[in-house]
Amino acid sequence: MASSLISRQFVLSLHKSSWLGAPACRHASKVAPKSQVEFGYDGPSMKTSVPGPRSQTLMKQLGDIQNVGAINFFCNYEESRGNYLVDVDNNRMLDVYTQISSIPIGYNHPALLKLMANPNNLSTFVNRPALGILPPENFPDKLNESLLSIAPSGMSRVQTMSCGSCSNENAYKTIFIWYRNKERGHNTPTDEDLSTCMINQAPGCPDLSILSFMGSFHGRTMGCLATTHSKSIHKLDIPSFDWPIAPFPRLQYPLEEFTRENAKEEARCLEEVEDLIIKWRQKGKPVAGIVIEPIQAEGGDNHASPDFFRSLRNITQKHGCAFHVDEVQTGGGSTGKVWAHEHWGMEDPADVVSFSKKLLTGGYYHKDQFQADKPYRIFNTWMGDPSKNLLLAEVLNVIRRENLLEEVARSGNALLNGLYELQAKYPGLLSRARGQGTFCAIDACDDGTRDSILLKARDKGVLLGGCGDRSIRFRPALVFKECHVHILLNIFNDVLSERK
Amino acid sequence: MASSLISRQFVLSLHKSSWLGAPACRHASKVAPKSQVEFGYDGPSMKTSVPGPRSQTLMKQLGDIQNVGAINFFCNYEESRGNYLVDVDNNRMLDVYTQISSIPIGYNHPALLKLMANPNNLSTFVNRPALGILPPENFPDKLNESLLSIAPSGMSRVQTMSCGSCSNENAYKTIFIWYRNKERGHNTPTDEDLSTCMINQAPGCPDLSILSFMGSFHGRTMGCLATTHSKSIHKLDIPSFDWPIAPFPRLQYPLEEFTRENAKEEARCLEEVEDLIIKWRQKGKPVAGIVIEPIQAEGGDNHASPDFFRSLRNITQKHGCAFHVDEVQTGGGSTGKVWAHEHWGMEDPADVVSFSKKLLTGGYYHKDQFQADKPYRIFNTWMGDPSKNLLLAEVLNVIRRENLLEEVARSGNALLNGLYELQAKYPGLLSRARGQGTFCAIDACDDGTRDSILLKARDKGVLLGGCGDRSIRFRPALVFKECHVHILLNIFNDVLSERK
Repeated sequence: MASSLISRQFVLSLHKSSWLGAPACRHASKVAPKSQVEFGYDGPSMKTSVPGPRSQTLMKQLGDIQNVGAINFFCNYEESRGNYLVDVDNNRMLDVYTQISSIPIGYNHPALLKLMANPNNLSTFVNRPALGILPPENFPDKLNESLLSIAPSGMSRVQTMSCGSCSNENAYKTIFIWYRNKERGHNTPTDEDLSTCMINQAPGCPDLSILSFMGSFHGRTMGCLATTHSKSIHKLDIPSFDWPIAPFPRLQYPLEEFTRENAKEEARCLEEVEDLIIKWRQKGKPVAGIVIEPIQAEGGDNHASPDFFRSLRNITQKHGCAFHVDEVQTGGGSTGKVWAHEHWGMEDPADVVSFSKKLLTGGYYHKDQFQADKPYRIFNTWMGDPSKNLLLAEVLNVIRRENLLEEVARSGNALLNGLYELQAKYPGLLSRARGQGTFCAIDACDDGTRDSILLKARDKGVLLGGCGDRSIRFRPALVFKECHVHILLNIFNDVLSERK
Repeated sequence: MASSLISRQFVLSLHKSSWLGAPACRHASKVAPKSQVEFGYDGPSMKTSVPGPRSQTLMKQLGDIQNVGAINFFCNYEESRGNYLVDVDNNRMLDVYTQISSIPIGYNHPALLKLMANPNNLSTFVNRPALGILPPENFPDKLNESLLSIAPSGMSRVQTMSCGSCSNENAYKTIFIWYRNKERGHNTPTDEDLSTCMINQAPGCPDLSILSFMGSFHGRTMGCLATTHSKSIHKLDIPSFDWPIAPFPRLQYPLEEFTRENAKEEARCLEEVEDLIIKWRQKGKPVAGIVIEPIQAEGGDNHASPDFFRSLRNITQKHGCAFHVDEVQTGGGSTGKVWAHEHWGMEDPADVVSFSKKLLTGGYYHKDQFQADKPYRIFNTWMGDPSKNLLLAEVLNVIRRENLLEEVARSGNALLNGLYELQAKYPGLLSRARGQGTFCAIDACDDGTRDSILLKARDKGVLLGGCGDRSIRFRPALVFKECHVHILLNIFNDVLSERK
C-alpha cells in the first residue's frame, strides 16, 4: 500500500505543472499528428453563455411537443468535429460527456463519413430488415468483423438489440429461460406451464428474481427498472417486482490507500448477497441471476476491486445463478480495455455481458448454454439494426488503426493525476478522485456546488456530466488525447479558482 | 345487412375472373406508370427452392453465433426493389410480409436513396445524439414535418423511442405517472414515495395495472410482455405482473353479415372489461390504463367494430383509466388511413397512441395532460434516432406525392375481394377472409395446412406471414398496387389448387 502511494505521488510530481496554469497548453493540439488537426478543432470557442439565444428559441418550439426540462442546448452536428461539439449559437465546447458516453470516436470522424459516402452502403440504411427472420447476406460476416472480434472471454455468441434497456431486458429473459430449464432438468414445458403463462400466472410465469445492487442503473423499461436503484425520479410511480437488492461497496479512494478498509466493506456486501440469495429462495422467488456494472456509472461512479467481482462470480456459481455483467456504459474502450471486466483478469468473467452506447448497437454476449432453446423466445421485429453494425465495424477499425486504447490509457493517466492535483489544491471543494482509463469522476462538496461547477465549466467551453448525488463524471470519446486533458484541466481549474 | 351482402356479391361479380387463372395478369405491372417500372421488377423469379444453397450455408455460419430457428432465408437487399425481395440465391419474391410489416414504401425507394446520397444528410447518420439533452437544430422541424404532420386527433405531443417495445413501455410509464398524480391530486411525492420506490416497494412503486386483451401483442420487454397474450412461446418462463386480461371479441366474418351476433359478442367483452376494472380496484391493483390494438395482428388479425372501440373509450372515461391505442402494426397507412383508429370516426379516440415499424422510428403520441411533469421521468440515452426521423419525413412525402393511401384502398379492395373468391372456391381450405385496406388475413383449416401453404407460396415467389393459430396475414408495403394483387392471387390460387 505504501509503495503504491509513493509511486502515485512520484507520478504526480512528474506531471506537476505540466499543464496547471500554463496557457500554452491550450494549444497543445497544434502539435498533434496532421490527420488529427485536420479532423478536429484546436480548442473551445465560446460566443454566448449556454444555452444561447438560438437554443432558447428552439427550446420554446420543442416545448410545444415535449418536456424540455432536460435539454442542455441544441447542437450543430454538421460543424462538430472530433472532441468538439458545436452548438446552434456557434459555441464550440470540448465534449467530455459525449452524448451520455455514447460517441466512440468523436464527431464526424472521417472514416465514418467515408463509409457513408460509399454508394454500396446506402441500401443498408434504407432497408431495415427483420434480422431474426431475413438477415442480409453480410450479417454473419459483419458480426464476426465487429462484435465477435471483441467478444468477452468464453463467449462466442451475441444477440443484437436496439438499445441498452432492450439488451438488458432480453438478457434477463435469457437468464430466466436458462434457469427454468435447469430447474426442470429438460426443456419441455408442461401443459400447465403453457396455459398459465398466457394469463401471467405461475408456474408458466414463475416467481423468479434478478438480484441487483443499490446505486445501480440497468435501464428504464419495467424489467430493467426493477434492477435500477440510482435515483428515485427514475422509479417513482412505476410498478415493480419484489426482487432482492444488495448493497454495493462504498469504497474509499484512492483505492490503493484503503485496501484494508475497502476489503472489509466488500466482504460485508458479499455476505449480504449470499444472505439475500438464501432469503429470496425461502420466499419462493429464487434468484435466477445477478446483474452488476463493473463501475456503477449513473449511480455515482462507484468502483469495486477485481477481488470483489471474482468473489461475486464464485457466489453465482455456488448458488447456481447466472452472472450478468452490464457493460452498457463501461464497454467500448474508455476504461483502457474494450470491456471493463477485463481488468478483473478472469477467464470466465460472466455468463452474459450486455452493451450499447459506444458500441452503437445494443445487444448482449452469452455463453453457449444461455442460448434460448427454441426460436421466437428471444425475438422482436428488428433485433438490432445492420446499419449500426456497419458503423461499428468501422469504429473498431479506427480504434485498432489509431491505437486508441493506448491513447485512452495515456490520457486517463494524465486526467486522473490532474484530478488528484486539483483535489489536493481545492480540498474543501473536491474529493474522491477516481477512475480507470478516461472513465473518471470526482466529487464536489455538495450537489449544488457540483451543479454550479458543471454550468460554469460549460460556459467556459467544457461539457461535463453529473452522476450520483454530487459527482462529476468524465466521459470523453476514445480520441481524447493528452492535449485535450490539458485543456480540460485548465478550464476546470479556472472554474474552481473562481469559487475558492 | 342484406344490402351489404348484395353489394359485396355485386362487387365480387364485377371482379370475377379479372385475374383468376389469367396468365396475362402476371405481367400487369408492365402497364404501370413508367416511374414504377423503372423502380420495380415485373414479377417473381425463382431459381431454387427456398432457402436455397447459399442461404443454407449462411444459416450454418450464423448458427455458430445465434439461434437461427426463425431465419427464413438470407437477403440481397441491394438488389431488392419495390415490392420484390431478392434472396442470396437470386430468387426474387413478391414480398407480402415486408419484414413483419415494417417496410413502408418498398425496398430501395429512389426517394430514400436520393436522400442518402445527399452529403448534407451524412452527419445525421454518424453522430447519434442523446435527443433528450442535446437535440440537433432541425429536431423540432423534423418532428413537425414528419410525426406531427400525421398526429392523431387531439394530440400535439410526441415522444420518439427506438422500437415498439420501448414505445409501449414508456407509454405505460407515462400512464402510471399520470394516474398517480391524479390519485394524489398534485404532483409532489411524499418522502415515503421517494424512499420506497428505491427498493421496488409501494407506495413509491404502486400496485397499478394495465388491462389488456387475450390475443393481444404489445411487445416483449417485461412491462409489455405482461400485456401480451398471443402465444405461449413469447411468455413462457418470464416473471410477470398480476394484471387483468379481458376477452377480445371473437367475431364472425364478413362483419357486415353478422352484425347482430358480433354486437352481442362485443357487448359480452365490454361487460367483462368493466367487471375486471372493478375487481382489480377491489384487489388493490387499480387499472391505470387499457391498452388495445385496433386490429389484433400477431394474435390472428382479430377485428372489432368502431362501436366496440367507442364503447371502450367511454368505459375508460367513466372509470378514469387512460386509453392507449397500440398502432405499432396497424399504423402507417396499410389500413387505408394513416392510423387504423381513424376508421372509428372519433374526435377523441385515445389518450396515448404508440407506433413503430412502418414509421421507422418508435414512439408515442399523447394528450397534453399525459406529459410527465418533470424531466428525466421519461428518458433514456437515445430517445429515438434522428436518422430515422429524416427517413420518415421523406417516406411521408412519398406517401402524399404518390397518393399511396388511395392506392392502398384500391389494392386492399381488390385483395379482399380476391380472398372472398378464393374462400368460396376452396371452402374446405379457407375461411374468414377479412381486412381493412391491404391489412388482410384469411384462415386455413388448421395450422399444418397454413404452414404448408406459406412454404409453397414462398417457393412459387410470394412471401407471406402467419399469425394466430391458423391465419395467413397479408402485409404488403404501401406501394403494393392492383397489379401486385393479381400476381399474388394467381400464385395463391395455384398453391391452393395443388392441395385441393
